[in-house]
Amino acid sequence: MKFAVAIFAWVLVTTVRAEGPFQPLPKNPPIPKDNPQTADKVRLGKQLYFDPRLSKDGTVSCNSCHNVMSGGADARPNSVGVGGKLGGRSAPTVWNAAFLSVQFWDGRAPSLEEQAKGPLTNPVEMAMPNHDAVMARVKTIPGYVEQFAKIFGKDAMTIDNLAKAIAAYERTLITPNSPFDRYLRGDKKAISTRAEKGYKAVVEVGCIACHMGPNFAGPALPQGTGFYQKFPVFPESSFVKKYALTADPGRAEATKKEEDKGMWRVPTWRNIALTAPYFHNGKVPTLDEAVRVMASTQLNKTLTEEQVGDIVAFLESLTGVFPETSLPRLPETPGKSLLGE
Amino acid sequence: MKFAVAIFAWVLVTTVRAEGPFQPLPKNPPIPKDNPQTADKVRLGKQLYFDPRLSKDGTVSCNSCHNVMSGGADARPNSVGVGGKLGGRSAPTVWNAAFLSVQFWDGRAPSLEEQAKGPLTNPVEMAMPNHDAVMARVKTIPGYVEQFAKIFGKDAMTIDNLAKAIAAYERTLITPNSPFDRYLRGDKKAISTRAEKGYKAVVEVGCIACHMGPNFAGPALPQGTGFYQKFPVFPESSFVKKYALTADPGRAEATKKEEDKGMWRVPTWRNIALTAPYFHNGKVPTLDEAVRVMASTQLNKTLTEEQVGDIVAFLESLTGVFPETSLPRLPETPGKSLLGE
Repeated sequence: MKFAVAIFAWVLVTTVRAEGPFQPLPKNPPIPKDNPQTADKVRLGKQLYFDPRLSKDGTVSCNSCHNVMSGGADARPNSVGVGGKLGGRSAPTVWNAAFLSVQFWDGRAPSLEEQAKGPLTNPVEMAMPNHDAVMARVKTIPGYVEQFAKIFGKDAMTIDNLAKAIAAYERTLITPNSPFDRYLRGDKKAISTRAEKGYKAVVEVGCIACHMGPNFAGPALPQGTGFYQKFPVFPESSFVKKYALTADPGRAEATKKEEDKGMWRVPTWRNIALTAPYFHNGKVPTLDEAVRVMASTQLNKTLTEEQVGDIVAFLESLTGVFPETSLPRLPETPGKSLLGE
Repeated sequence: MKFAVAIFAWVLVTTVRAEGPFQPLPKNPPIPKDNPQTADKVRLGKQLYFDPRLSKDGTVSCNSCHNVMSGGADARPNSVGVGGKLGGRSAPTVWNAAFLSVQFWDGRAPSLEEQAKGPLTNPVEMAMPNHDAVMARVKTIPGYVEQFAKIFGKDAMTIDNLAKAIAAYERTLITPNSPFDRYLRGDKKAISTRAEKGYKAVVEVGCIACHMGPNFAGPALPQGTGFYQKFPVFPESSFVKKYALTADPGRAEATKKEEDKGMWRVPTWRNIALTAPYFHNGKVPTLDEAVRVMASTQLNKTLTEEQVGDIVAFLESLTGVFPETSLPRLPETPGKSLLGE
C-alpha cells in the first residue's frame, strides 16, 4: 500500500502536473542504437515472425500466440505450444509492445530482441532444443540466408540477428489514432460521453497511479527498466481466491528474490478490449470483470456498475487503428521439407 | 496395368492429339452457379480461412495446415490438429485446388464448399463438436454477423454460407504464370534446358497418362467427377513396403467399396516443389525420391539419375506466381473471448 501511494504521489508530481496523466501514442517507438530499422530487416523479421518452421514440429510461429490479425494475442487463457502443451501464462499482446521498457509479464527480458529468443526454446511454446538448432534450420532455407547476408553482412546467421529482425518487425506493430488519442489531440467528439465519464473515473478512482503514460503502462523509462507493481495489493479481496491471482509468484519466478513475489510489469491498456481473457493467468473472462477485479485488488474499492460501464467504454476508446499490411511469403526449400525427417 | 494403359490410350486420343498434354493455367477456375464470386464474399472467406476461433480451442485455422504464405500445405508428413493430434493423411495444397473437380485425397468432397466443412468437425483437425457449434460461435462475432447478412441476406448464418465464403476465397488462390506456363504460351526461354528435357521425359516415361490438363491432375471434368488412379499399380515395387504405400485403403475408406481400395485422386503437380514431404502419407521426404517412387510404382520403370534430375527441374518450373495479398483482420468480440470459458 505504501508502495502504491508513493508511486501515486510521484506520478502526480512528475506526470499529471506536467502534461496530464496520458499522452497520445507517439508515431514511433524507441529504437535501440544497435538495431536500426530498415525496410529489408522489417521484411525479414515479418517472415520469421510468421514462420512455423521456427518451432520443433513446424506448427507454431510467433504469430500463433501473438496474432497480429487480431488483438495481438490468442484470445485464450493460456497459449498452446508444440504438441498441445499449455503455457503457464496468458500471451500478452504484441501490439505496442515496442513501447514497453521491459518484456514478458515479469519483465525478465530487457528488450524485444531478448524477448524474441525466449519462446523459441521454451518446451511448452516453440520447443526447439536450443538456439543452435533454430539457426541450423534457418540456415537450410536459401531465402533466409540471402536476406541475413544482405542485412547483417558477414557471419550473419546468428540467433542475435534473427532476434533483431523479429524485433524490428515488432517495432512496426503500433496502433496510433485510437479515439482517445484523437480526443487527447483536441477532437473532443472522438469518444462517447460514457467514455469521457470513464476517463474521469480512472483518474478519480486511482487507476492512473500505474496505468499512465503513452502506453498506459507507466512512465516512459529507459529500455530495460521495468515499471512493476504489486498485484494484488489487497490479498483479502474475494477476487484473489476466485481467480487464483496469487498462485503465480510473478517476477520472483524470474529473479528468485522474495521481494519480487507478486510483482508484475504493469501491462498496457491499449487495445485491451481485444485481449480477453484477462490477467497473467487469463482467468478473468471479461473486461468489465477485469475492471472490478482491479478496483478491488489494487485500490480496495467496489465500483458501481455504472462506473464499471463507464470505465469499459473508456478502455474501448483505446482500441487503435491497425496498420494494413501484406501477407508475407515464407522462403521455401524446393523439393524437401525441414520437418518430420 | 490394363487400367493405366486404357487411360493412357484415352489421353492420347482426347488430349495429346488435340492440344498437347498440358495447357497453361486458366486465369479463372470454374465457378459454381450457386456461389458466384463477389469481393465481399472473398473478403469474408479470407477472414474465416485465417480464423483459429473456428477450431475447438482457438489454435487451428484452415491456414494452419494449408498455409498460403508458403506452398499451401504445412511441410509436415501429416498435419497437427487441436491438442497436438496427428491427422491420418498429409495436407494437400490449397493452391489451385479450385481447378480440381473433387477434393480430399480420396475425392470424397465434390466441391470446395463441401471440403471446407470437413476439417471443422474432424476430431484430429479443428475438433468442433458439430457444425451448429461452429455457427453458434460465429454468430457471437458481430463483424461476421454483419458480413453474412450483407452477403447472404436473410437467415444468412448457416454452415453452407460459411463454406461458400471460404470456397470463394479459395477460388482466388491460384498461381498462373509459372515458368512452364510462359513456356507453353511461346516463351521458349522461360524454362531451363534441363527442365525442357524433363518435360520430354514425363511425356516419354508416361507420367502424363494421369498428370495432364491445366492442373496436371487429369482432364478438366465436370465438378464432382473425380479423376482417380490406382496407387501403387505395381505393388511389388520395393518402395511400396519402404514407404508403407498400401497401409491406407485410399478412396475405399470413403466409399467402403472393395474396388476403390488403393484408388486415389490424381494430385496436382503445380507448386509440387513447395509441398514436400510427398504422397498421401507424407512418408517420402524429397521430390527426387517422389519421382523415383512414381516411376517404379506406377510404370514399373527405374529412371536414371539424370532422368530424375531432369524431371525434378521440370516440376520446379511449375512453381507459379503467388498473388500478393493483404493480411486479413479478424472481426473482434470486444471485452470478452469466445475461448476457454
